[in-house]
Amino acid sequence: MNLYQHGLLDALRGFAAGSFHASDYLESCIGRTLAVEPKIAAFAHFDPSTVRAALRAVPEGAPLAGLPVAVKDIIATRGVPTEMGSRAFAGHVPPQSANVVVALERAGGLMFGKSVTTELAWRNAGATRNPWNLNHTPGGSSSGSAAAVAAGCVPAALGTQTFGSVIRPAAFCGIVGYKPSFGTLSRVGVHALAGSLDHVGVLTRSVVDAAFLVSVLAAGGGQASRPVADAPRRARIALLRTSVWPQVSAEQQAAVQLAATRFESQGALVSELVLPPMFEQIWAVADVLCSVEAAANHGVLHDAEPPVIGPAMRDWVRLGRATSGPAYVQARDMQRRLIDAFAACMAPFDVVLTAPTLAGPPPGLDATGDAVLCTPFSVLGAPAITLPVTRSAAGLPLGIQLASPWGRDATLLAVAAWGEALLPWGEPSDSRDVCFPAL
Amino acid sequence: MNLYQHGLLDALRGFAAGSFHASDYLESCIGRTLAVEPKIAAFAHFDPSTVRAALRAVPEGAPLAGLPVAVKDIIATRGVPTEMGSRAFAGHVPPQSANVVVALERAGGLMFGKSVTTELAWRNAGATRNPWNLNHTPGGSSSGSAAAVAAGCVPAALGTQTFGSVIRPAAFCGIVGYKPSFGTLSRVGVHALAGSLDHVGVLTRSVVDAAFLVSVLAAGGGQASRPVADAPRRARIALLRTSVWPQVSAEQQAAVQLAATRFESQGALVSELVLPPMFEQIWAVADVLCSVEAAANHGVLHDAEPPVIGPAMRDWVRLGRATSGPAYVQARDMQRRLIDAFAACMAPFDVVLTAPTLAGPPPGLDATGDAVLCTPFSVLGAPAITLPVTRSAAGLPLGIQLASPWGRDATLLAVAAWGEALLPWGEPSDSRDVCFPAL
Repeated sequence: MNLYQHGLLDALRGFAAGSFHASDYLESCIGRTLAVEPKIAAFAHFDPSTVRAALRAVPEGAPLAGLPVAVKDIIATRGVPTEMGSRAFAGHVPPQSANVVVALERAGGLMFGKSVTTELAWRNAGATRNPWNLNHTPGGSSSGSAAAVAAGCVPAALGTQTFGSVIRPAAFCGIVGYKPSFGTLSRVGVHALAGSLDHVGVLTRSVVDAAFLVSVLAAGGGQASRPVADAPRRARIALLRTSVWPQVSAEQQAAVQLAATRFESQGALVSELVLPPMFEQIWAVADVLCSVEAAANHGVLHDAEPPVIGPAMRDWVRLGRATSGPAYVQARDMQRRLIDAFAACMAPFDVVLTAPTLAGPPPGLDATGDAVLCTPFSVLGAPAITLPVTRSAAGLPLGIQLASPWGRDATLLAVAAWGEALLPWGEPSDSRDVCFPAL
Repeated sequence: MNLYQHGLLDALRGFAAGSFHASDYLESCIGRTLAVEPKIAAFAHFDPSTVRAALRAVPEGAPLAGLPVAVKDIIATRGVPTEMGSRAFAGHVPPQSANVVVALERAGGLMFGKSVTTELAWRNAGATRNPWNLNHTPGGSSSGSAAAVAAGCVPAALGTQTFGSVIRPAAFCGIVGYKPSFGTLSRVGVHALAGSLDHVGVLTRSVVDAAFLVSVLAAGGGQASRPVADAPRRARIALLRTSVWPQVSAEQQAAVQLAATRFESQGALVSELVLPPMFEQIWAVADVLCSVEAAANHGVLHDAEPPVIGPAMRDWVRLGRATSGPAYVQARDMQRRLIDAFAACMAPFDVVLTAPTLAGPPPGLDATGDAVLCTPFSVLGAPAITLPVTRSAAGLPLGIQLASPWGRDATLLAVAAWGEALLPWGEPSDSRDVCFPAL
């Protein structure tokens, strides 16, 4: 086993036990990155010498001491280019880091490199390729974060989600993506797309790694206060298909069914959840909130001559501008009502089980896939996590998505950690950490 | 002195000491109301028998036991008509009371009657007249609340303010109006005009009465936790003229100057505050927030055929509909920046001193006066209070307005209570409670 294959907590335990040195782990990650980066193009900026220097300055005893973490390129990093996947920000070097990067570095984590984002975290894809098949999209907008973690460049990465930008690339790349409850992680210094929907999240290769990283970051870089709890003895799982289920591929449906069956066989209570009709509005609410807020945030860029943003964002700004103020206010009010209604509907359940995406990663690099199954949980500000389940006939990852109402992250993580061990992903090697794509 | 002339705390002390009975006080208020109501038209609904019955059911020892309070007619009262000053709500009887009325009644307060509001708390005036001169407006939108308290029908009333609807009518009627910090009093059951700006406030005849009533209501009807503190030994007062000062009448300017001089002579440090240029946007921000949110709230009424709302609200809804979503989002963001900037600018000060209105109450009953001097503190969510200072050459009240940054109500009330005793209002009788209009 190569050192880079150790996940976040495994690595920290290895450092603590003296099994291997943080510098050796870092060199293994650097070596892996240099080897695979020409193929996967996960990084917008990567400078090994800076990371090595950072390691030498790491505070003793800090909770993430010496751990390399990739940072999505819409998250500001002091003195390090932060280009937002946009030529409007070419060469931009922020004077201060985002709060979440400050927390990462206070905790002893190493800002390993800036991972590729789609343009302004919207739809125009970057150059990153899916490590499981270079002709397929890694998903977006946290494209580089997902590919880097999946390929073994880093054990963890920071990403953001407005519609589906943590869950979808994580699912497409066969890793864990965790978007904690809205507001859990600071967005100060994170380039805004839509304030009502933007979440900071993490991408890792196991549930416990994701939970640990979020708890450290949420504590501003202090000691993590939230180990993953034991799952309820009989987890109450709501199988949620929603009205888009007929669009979900047979393979993806089967992956969800496989997970449901395994969970049930181990004592979970799985039953179908049908949400009331008002939830049919959730995608329209997302479009109004996101387009209007994007227009408010990016209107100046839209109007620049010659153009500095691509057609996807230009069209989105125009849609927002064509939306009236009262329509926006009504969408915001509906968002609140949906949040309340979801909490009420979920009272008899611990988590929702659904698909993260309509299918495995589609071929081609121009588009990053559909967020339709992620968007509801972004509107709801709900904690959501994706776990890899199995691989499709074409060898590409297929996952599930679990979610809970806002604020119930602890329950979600407990069930997810319990469920993760029941899924075939990583078999027959029986270890998630060695389930890496051949690159 | 007639019993009805006792203010809120005086009345409660009178009940407690056995100086007079709550039922005698109530009968005095009822008698006064029956006498003056044909002239001032303060009430949309008033039924003495219901109030008498309520008094018999009052819990012993409750903080407002037996105290009659008028309730603005956009605030829901269970079983009692609540018509919002709008024919769209003619005959409407709510099934539940607003939270703030529940709190009032839990505290033993008597819902005395529903006081006239302008149509939907916007600009179309009701029938109420100014008790100091029946040919002048009482101000709005809490028109009946102000007139009823000024005339001695009740010692206190509930009102609401979106632009200037507590401060302005209180100033026009020569009483105290207090709008606590945004969010202090529940708006559940209060008909919404614009959620970013709507405040519940109170109208009384002294600062301590207003402070006591708000503290009881904020505690859900429990014991008041916030007596008015002693003022700072040397209150730091920021004289704020703003760019509209040239529009303020000479008499109104003189009233503010008189207050400043008296405060200074008693040790206050008065200095001019010039706010940064961004504050010039505050009125435009208010218009965008209010018109867009009003359009979202009242769009269905606007579209009804035949029309059920008047031209003022129809025009306002149309303005909101013509405002784009991004313009609304930018106004909301600017509101947040203004709140932060105001807190920073006020760091060296305890309170702002300014005028509540451009002049005394204008003649005529069709319009309710200009809110331009109140609106900034509504946008800022800032606690604001008006105190009567003196009477104009025409015998109409002139007041001042004091305000502090959001959350600093305790400081504001301390300075206001201290300052109130220094103002000529009520002289030569030397008692505020007997300063009543001849009706």
